[in-house]
Amino acid sequence: MGNVDSNLETARLLRPYERPLIRNAWYCAAWSHEVGEDFLTRRILDMPVLLYRTSSGEAVALLDICPHKLAPMHQGSRVGDNIVCGYHGLEFDCSGACVSNPQGNREIPQAARLRSFPLLEKWGVLWIWTGDPARADPAKIIDCSHFESPQWRTVKGGHYVRSNYMLLVENLLDLGHALFLHKQTGGLGDNLVLSDHRIEQGEDTLRDLRLYRDTQPPATVFGKYVPRGVRLDFNADMLWVAPSMLRSHNGCSESGHARDGSGLSLYGTHLLTPETQHSMHYFYGTSRNYALDDPEIDEAYRRFQRDALHKEDSMVAESIDAVLADTMDLGVRMVTLSTDASGIRVNRMLDRMAEADR
Amino acid sequence: MGNVDSNLETARLLRPYERPLIRNAWYCAAWSHEVGEDFLTRRILDMPVLLYRTSSGEAVALLDICPHKLAPMHQGSRVGDNIVCGYHGLEFDCSGACVSNPQGNREIPQAARLRSFPLLEKWGVLWIWTGDPARADPAKIIDCSHFESPQWRTVKGGHYVRSNYMLLVENLLDLGHALFLHKQTGGLGDNLVLSDHRIEQGEDTLRDLRLYRDTQPPATVFGKYVPRGVRLDFNADMLWVAPSMLRSHNGCSESGHARDGSGLSLYGTHLLTPETQHSMHYFYGTSRNYALDDPEIDEAYRRFQRDALHKEDSMVAESIDAVLADTMDLGVRMVTLSTDASGIRVNRMLDRMAEADR
Amino acid sequence: MGNVDSNLETARLLRPYERPLIRNAWYCAAWSHEVGEDFLTRRILDMPVLLYRTSSGEAVALLDICPHKLAPMHQGSRVGDNIVCGYHGLEFDCSGACVSNPQGNREIPQAARLRSFPLLEKWGVLWIWTGDPARADPAKIIDCSHFESPQWRTVKGGHYVRSNYMLLVENLLDLGHALFLHKQTGGLGDNLVLSDHRIEQGEDTLRDLRLYRDTQPPATVFGKYVPRGVRLDFNADMLWVAPSMLRSHNGCSESGHARDGSGLSLYGTHLLTPETQHSMHYFYGTSRNYALDDPEIDEAYRRFQRDALHKEDSMVAESIDAVLADTMDLGVRMVTLSTDASGIRVNRMLDRMAEADR
Repeated sequence: MGNVDSNLETARLLRPYERPLIRNAWYCAAWSHEVGEDFLTRRILDMPVLLYRTSSGEAVALLDICPHKLAPMHQGSRVGDNIVCGYHGLEFDCSGACVSNPQGNREIPQAARLRSFPLLEKWGVLWIWTGDPARADPAKIIDCSHFESPQWRTVKGGHYVRSNYMLLVENLLDLGHALFLHKQTGGLGDNLVLSDHRIEQGEDTLRDLRLYRDTQPPATVFGKYVPRGVRLDFNADMLWVAPSMLRSHNGCSESGHARDGSGLSLYGTHLLTPETQHSMHYFYGTSRNYALDDPEIDEAYRRFQRDALHKEDSMVAESIDAVLADTMDLGVRMVTLSTDASGIRVNRMLDRMAEADR
Repeated sequence: MGNVDSNLETARLLRPYERPLIRNAWYCAAWSHEVGEDFLTRRILDMPVLLYRTSSGEAVALLDICPHKLAPMHQGSRVGDNIVCGYHGLEFDCSGACVSNPQGNREIPQAARLRSFPLLEKWGVLWIWTGDPARADPAKIIDCSHFESPQWRTVKGGHYVRSNYMLLVENLLDLGHALFLHKQTGGLGDNLVLSDHRIEQGEDTLRDLRLYRDTQPPATVFGKYVPRGVRLDFNADMLWVAPSMLRSHNGCSESGHARDGSGLSLYGTHLLTPETQHSMHYFYGTSRNYALDDPEIDEAYRRFQRDALHKEDSMVAESIDAVLADTMDLGVRMVTLSTDASGIRVNRMLDRMAEADR
Repeated sequence: MGNVDSNLETARLLRPYERPLIRNAWYCAAWSHEVGEDFLTRRILDMPVLLYRTSSGEAVALLDICPHKLAPMHQGSRVGDNIVCGYHGLEFDCSGACVSNPQGNREIPQAARLRSFPLLEKWGVLWIWTGDPARADPAKIIDCSHFESPQWRTVKGGHYVRSNYMLLVENLLDLGHALFLHKQTGGLGDNLVLSDHRIEQGEDTLRDLRLYRDTQPPATVFGKYVPRGVRLDFNADMLWVAPSMLRSHNGCSESGHARDGSGLSLYGTHLLTPETQHSMHYFYGTSRNYALDDPEIDEAYRRFQRDALHKEDSMVAESIDAVLADTMDLGVRMVTLSTDASGIRVNRMLDRMAEADR
């Protein structure tokens, strides 16, 4: 019945939420539609980042701090595709190079440059790399091609969470909380019998794969579109891509044809961007390959996002974050349940990434 | 004329307000009437404490943090007398033992327990012991039997104070401030002549006993009930029980019969429960052995609590707490007046308790 | 063309804004008209300072903390020219000496004194010395005699700024920002050609002197009062007196008679009083030697103060202060432009003062 550890009980301290943020990584800086020719400033990994598009539509990410007197660049203005500091008029191109100094001798100091961040636009998302630009490999981004495929319909959303991002990473990797925290708002129901549970670990990915063979898939996921009275193979999988990009997959197929994509499928994409050690920007999309034009389904998934992702998961994450300092002071050690198997592996991988990141 | 030091002038730094909170001690967690079958969470000595009553009416105090993923237990629910975490469904009995794990293999991790606190219900107060349970001796609680005696009528109250609790302990031990801070709201007046002043120190108690023989007791205390034109013995005593339970006693008796309990008596009970190093829950009761059914007297003592205890004493405590950091930076040394005699002794006792507490 | 360094490019860390505040120095505590017989409390260099006037009109500055139990003195009352603590009644004269203890044995503890600060009233300003009283030399105060001269008319103002005071000192020493930050609200225009630029450094003063010979002075400074079509010598000077008193001088004179005082002159006086490391009280006056009775000019300079000093300069200072911690974390190094020449010299002088201050 799979390769999942049966005994994971190890007491440990609260390190996951104190681990330094991972800089050599991709994060969702913004949805594509959020950024236009006007400046958007967003705090990412404790850095004020300025986002805008050039006249050709290319999006740019620069540190929002002028290297002369530290004035916020977003209080300046645009001149063509360049950006001019509102304090003393230093002008920078969209690579961050200073191209004009209107002061005194007009010489441009060598060190006068704005830090620019690798920014990649793909599948309607602006992906930012916050570490060493030489290591920014686009292949490390989670596949979100379903956001732009005509075979899928996606309902997008997002909100701000006052907690360390790992509290939601662990939450998403753990299916066990759904029956309790999401009792009213979703969850798979408690009458499913697991046929196979498998965890597949890559270099910086993890798949948690659950299969329920020859069963009645839960109505909570597919609503009226799940065929009644027909027995099907149902899978509930989660893909994690380091450090905080996740995609769930709920699917059903004719019995014996698990995960062949022939039946109903639902992707939940979760992009968690740390703002600080104790806050994050949470971007998500719910994508389906059926009933593409049914606005009631759109609304149902919007409600799910509002209730399950925002009110339930994020509220519990914020409540926990608020007592993290207490639990350190009190020496509270956390216990581990079988539902934490994937979270533990992911934490070990992130420990190594954080070590390499220094 | 007593045993009170005549010269206490010693400059000292601000240590009383920086001394670590005393853990091996009893505190008022709540009035009995505040706690029912619903959860009440209150922060005590920097710990989130969950209070509720079982179906048999017994009150329970548990740490409000699930040992699995640190979710607040008060966001969960009750199942009979047990409490179920709302995040993953771990169930605990009211001793804090985990009795059910609905996840995966359903094994209960050995370390899965909620810290439970000794809680004693007596005289309408829920007393919590925040230290080593083995050392919780009920004999260390201040006597509040007057709260439940038919010979006494008590007006209870309480409020939240943003200051270190020692600022109010010292305030209550020092009668000298009444003439100034409480000029409009009480105080004993300035025409009393002290006959005897005695400080009696126990292992972890202190009594500050003042006697005014053959005098006219102040009308501010007993109002119209003090007999006019009759000379009586009047006492103004304070009992302190470590670390922060106090009871004042103002009484009058026929001359030569001081403290025999035959005349009018007024108890002021003050229970100070640190929330953090710089905030506290302040519970108090004003109890009298006369005019038990006079609602005007009730209202007069309520007004005294609101004006003298809340607006005056607590406001000055908060103002002082707000400059403690300044005074440290500036190296301000405090001077001592004779009115601080009891406060100094109490601080020395608490220094020893804090040392033993580590 | 003067003695200003042509190449100042040196990368440096953010030290000016982290340098300890200078204690052995004069600051504007208040305008004279702000202080009367009632208490005024103002936080200066991280100290709560109490200001009031005696019955003879003399202004007094005392630390607003009672040396007994640390109660704020401003919550007490006045008895004649003395001040009585509202908590226990200790009475202090206006030199800070304790003159009465109403408690117990009534002995006055030797250490019972309020710290008093040298306070000098001159030109409508109350100047406070926050360091060693023996070193308080009135000659170190910036000349503000124009505030009280009948030849000048002054429009005064002030506001609170949430930034380190050096962000405004540097701002005032740097004329280069005017063309950009104050494009709408002032600035000298960009058609002036500098004839001479000279920096004169004294022991704890600096003069930044700019002369534009035989030119048309900018209308932004003198409005309709600048003669049209007449060529004049125009100067734009700044005087800095350590640590944070500044006076700008814009003047025009017949060609060949630069700075002889015969023409229109405008003084901008800027008195920056640190409240904390990251906030200040900003007092300013705009003084002119012409059109003394023209209320439109008053209003024009009030508007300039509101727009240029408050909304523009102070807003940018606050924005920069808000990212100082970020720039430290990110190791952002500041680059230097020629407009920073005076600021760099002033910072070097203040570094030495801070060193001597310890």
